[in-house]
Amino acid sequence: MASKAFAVIAGVGPGTGAACARRFASAYPVALLARNPENYESLVQEINKNGGKAIGISTDVSKEDSVKAAFKKIEEEYSGATCAAAIFNASGPFARKPLLEMSVESFAKSWEVSVQGALIFSQASLPHLLKHAEDSSAKYPPTLIFTGATASVKANAQMSGFAAPKFALRALSTSIAKEFAPKGVHVAHAVIDGVIDIPRTKDWLKDMPAEAKIGADDIAESYWNLHLQSKRCFTNEIDIRPMLEKW
Amino acid sequence: MASKAFAVIAGVGPGTGAACARRFASAYPVALLARNPENYESLVQEINKNGGKAIGISTDVSKEDSVKAAFKKIEEEYSGATCAAAIFNASGPFARKPLLEMSVESFAKSWEVSVQGALIFSQASLPHLLKHAEDSSAKYPPTLIFTGATASVKANAQMSGFAAPKFALRALSTSIAKEFAPKGVHVAHAVIDGVIDIPRTKDWLKDMPAEAKIGADDIAESYWNLHLQSKRCFTNEIDIRPMLEKW
Amino acid sequence: MASKAFAVIAGVGPGTGAACARRFASAYPVALLARNPENYESLVQEINKNGGKAIGISTDVSKEDSVKAAFKKIEEEYSGATCAAAIFNASGPFARKPLLEMSVESFAKSWEVSVQGALIFSQASLPHLLKHAEDSSAKYPPTLIFTGATASVKANAQMSGFAAPKFALRALSTSIAKEFAPKGVHVAHAVIDGVIDIPRTKDWLKDMPAEAKIGADDIAESYWNLHLQSKRCFTNEIDIRPMLEKW
Amino acid sequence: MASKAFAVIAGVGPGTGAACARRFASAYPVALLARNPENYESLVQEINKNGGKAIGISTDVSKEDSVKAAFKKIEEEYSGATCAAAIFNASGPFARKPLLEMSVESFAKSWEVSVQGALIFSQASLPHLLKHAEDSSAKYPPTLIFTGATASVKANAQMSGFAAPKFALRALSTSIAKEFAPKGVHVAHAVIDGVIDIPRTKDWLKDMPAEAKIGADDIAESYWNLHLQSKRCFTNEIDIRPMLEKW
Repeated sequence: MASKAFAVIAGVGPGTGAACARRFASAYPVALLARNPENYESLVQEINKNGGKAIGISTDVSKEDSVKAAFKKIEEEYSGATCAAAIFNASGPFARKPLLEMSVESFAKSWEVSVQGALIFSQASLPHLLKHAEDSSAKYPPTLIFTGATASVKANAQMSGFAAPKFALRALSTSIAKEFAPKGVHVAHAVIDGVIDIPRTKDWLKDMPAEAKIGADDIAESYWNLHLQSKRCFTNEIDIRPMLEKW
Repeated sequence: MASKAFAVIAGVGPGTGAACARRFASAYPVALLARNPENYESLVQEINKNGGKAIGISTDVSKEDSVKAAFKKIEEEYSGATCAAAIFNASGPFARKPLLEMSVESFAKSWEVSVQGALIFSQASLPHLLKHAEDSSAKYPPTLIFTGATASVKANAQMSGFAAPKFALRALSTSIAKEFAPKGVHVAHAVIDGVIDIPRTKDWLKDMPAEAKIGADDIAESYWNLHLQSKRCFTNEIDIRPMLEKW
Repeated sequence: MASKAFAVIAGVGPGTGAACARRFASAYPVALLARNPENYESLVQEINKNGGKAIGISTDVSKEDSVKAAFKKIEEEYSGATCAAAIFNASGPFARKPLLEMSVESFAKSWEVSVQGALIFSQASLPHLLKHAEDSSAKYPPTLIFTGATASVKANAQMSGFAAPKFALRALSTSIAKEFAPKGVHVAHAVIDGVIDIPRTKDWLKDMPAEAKIGADDIAESYWNLHLQSKRCFTNEIDIRPMLEKW
Repeated sequence: MASKAFAVIAGVGPGTGAACARRFASAYPVALLARNPENYESLVQEINKNGGKAIGISTDVSKEDSVKAAFKKIEEEYSGATCAAAIFNASGPFARKPLLEMSVESFAKSWEVSVQGALIFSQASLPHLLKHAEDSSAKYPPTLIFTGATASVKANAQMSGFAAPKFALRALSTSIAKEFAPKGVHVAHAVIDGVIDIPRTKDWLKDMPAEAKIGADDIAESYWNLHLQSKRCFTNEIDIRPMLEKW
């Protein structure tokens, strides 16, 4: 890779975030953001041990100051590098709740992480993505990816605390895509429509074959393939399901 | 009307809100909520003078306390009445803004009014709507209507501050519709796709015929017709355009 | 009604078509098209006996000649009248079929009725609708309505023989709406998302309350309300569900 | 590649079809279907000369007999092989036409190629795709891809002859995806939203940079990446735009 570039991933947990970290670390130094350092510490070690380069930064994506501080640290650590890929994988909780029992606070909190967080992350990463777009030695167009869910396109009963922010995130992604594509930034939204196979979902669908769940590594590979697309072929939305998903 | 019932309209300004107030006041006593009393004062007078019954309550829909206080006042004024119709017409501002110039505060503010406000208003009105559903003398199923916009289904460049909340509002509406329809509440979302003909838009499209803009009274009539639908025929979404709209 | 106008309904059976015939016959002379005269004979009698005016014409909507002949007859019977409303309610069969067992012929047949039929009917009725738009004594804008289904927006497994034409019909409706709205014709598409309560579905959902099915008369009332909308407020799509529908 | 497998591409012209032929020929023997042999002859030569394996078969995809004959020839040529990938790239013409000037014949013709053709091609290829799904030595899940367009999701005025079939094709693709995913076949639909850079479009957008058009090779690469997805990560729809597309 001729250009000096990094990738940044917000919302690094044991699933999609970690898988993206590993996948993008095979090509770029990575910065991993999560509120809880436990979520990235061993992963940072693993990547650095395996010949990659990673840093972890404790960040609350819903807070502008926290994200700005994180990017300041990235700029110091990866001084002079542009941003090849930024992945927003943070999300408010998936939680079913009768409408009349949902607290306004929890509804607001879900928005703050999923949507306000996505805005703050985009505003922080776009200047670096734009620099990558202007770098003629860059191998691939800079890519900004947002992780959505079934609830990005389907609002079920008792799911508004999750679906309202996810619908909003999809709108944000599309709006940014339209504004920044002409400047060379590839923005994409992924509708992850199914259960991701992670430790937390171990007991879900456990009488079903492995193909009933989505592989986190497979999501990461699909995100990587979005990154490889040329300026003459930007995909702005993909959906992802396991083979056995009903939809 | 055998049952004692009221209608409540949040977001009463000079356009859709006022038109709905007049239309629903022909059948029900109405409660009009707006932050600024100027927005409802003359309208309240007009309705009361013309043989209807109206009260106005200064309310910040984005604040739970404010909405709760408003409904307490409604319960006092229309004591013992159930809610036949609740219309949420409040909205953050329609504002074009390059993403990197948009403040996180203004983005959050737009959400607070358009989406958090809709949640708070729904939580306050649904218990009264449910009582109407249980009232066998009620003439029509209780109706909860949310006013959306082009941006509810289309997220253009530089419009995320408006589109993200509007997408979210649509998800909220659908989720509430699915949860409360089986309990007899009719929930609908309206995609208002065009310029409404109000004093503020007087100079927009002014070289075009009247059919280039949406009539606020016509929107109110369409909302009223949603209210008339039977339990065997709930429309959960309508779009509305003037004859000359390009879409 | 100052203007001399008629309404035409294609696809008159015992459900939506008959209900529309009755509803629109309360305001306009109606022409009822169905392949099988049994589907309209008693209805024509009923309307004429009750003070309305109706004619029935045996028509195969999938054949251009047949529809042209039907409109020639309408022009003779309702000489000098313009078309206030045209409703296309014909449809290929709702049939579940494994893809590899579906015959190309049945797939084509479903298309011919649902989509080609809709095109032919539109081409035949639009000149009359346009005349109504130009008639300054017309009470309401001329209205062209297409009946869709759940399958208009959702393509389930083994349902492509029904869903493919229904998706196509929705596209046709939107395209016509965009072309003819500026000329004053109101075009609308209805997503009928549930079981309509007709003799054929008597045994469906029979352990459920009446609110589990859609009332055909209620659909007709909603179509009528679409017809009443002004040029400053065209709704181009509605969905319709019974209160107890899961969606 | 352990398994003996072929890829088949219907609708091979100078753009997407040829690019897919080249891309998939790097991994599989290919069968290229087009009505006019001129569309594949030099391409077949090119692939065979470059170390790949290709056959061309003159086929009218809208005719069941013609497609069956083509697959019979494929079975002879690639005897014992299963189908790793089938790409349906045929389409009725993109043509703007006022509704009242469109002939029913041209409307029907567009459907026959775009939708009936897709059904016939699917019915012919699915048995071979299913065999590939059962072949434990197959490297990737068998993939069936349909090429859509802007008109698959947007029905503009005067475009119904193109949009109605494209909406229908999308429904067909989704329905097949849901039926055959549990059997291991990956079905995907691509919304190609922009002008593809081919000889025929040379003069379109010619004052614009190269990034105003979609690269046919880039589409083929995206299709290839769909093919690589695992059973735990099927993408059923992608959109594709050039960087400078307005949408």
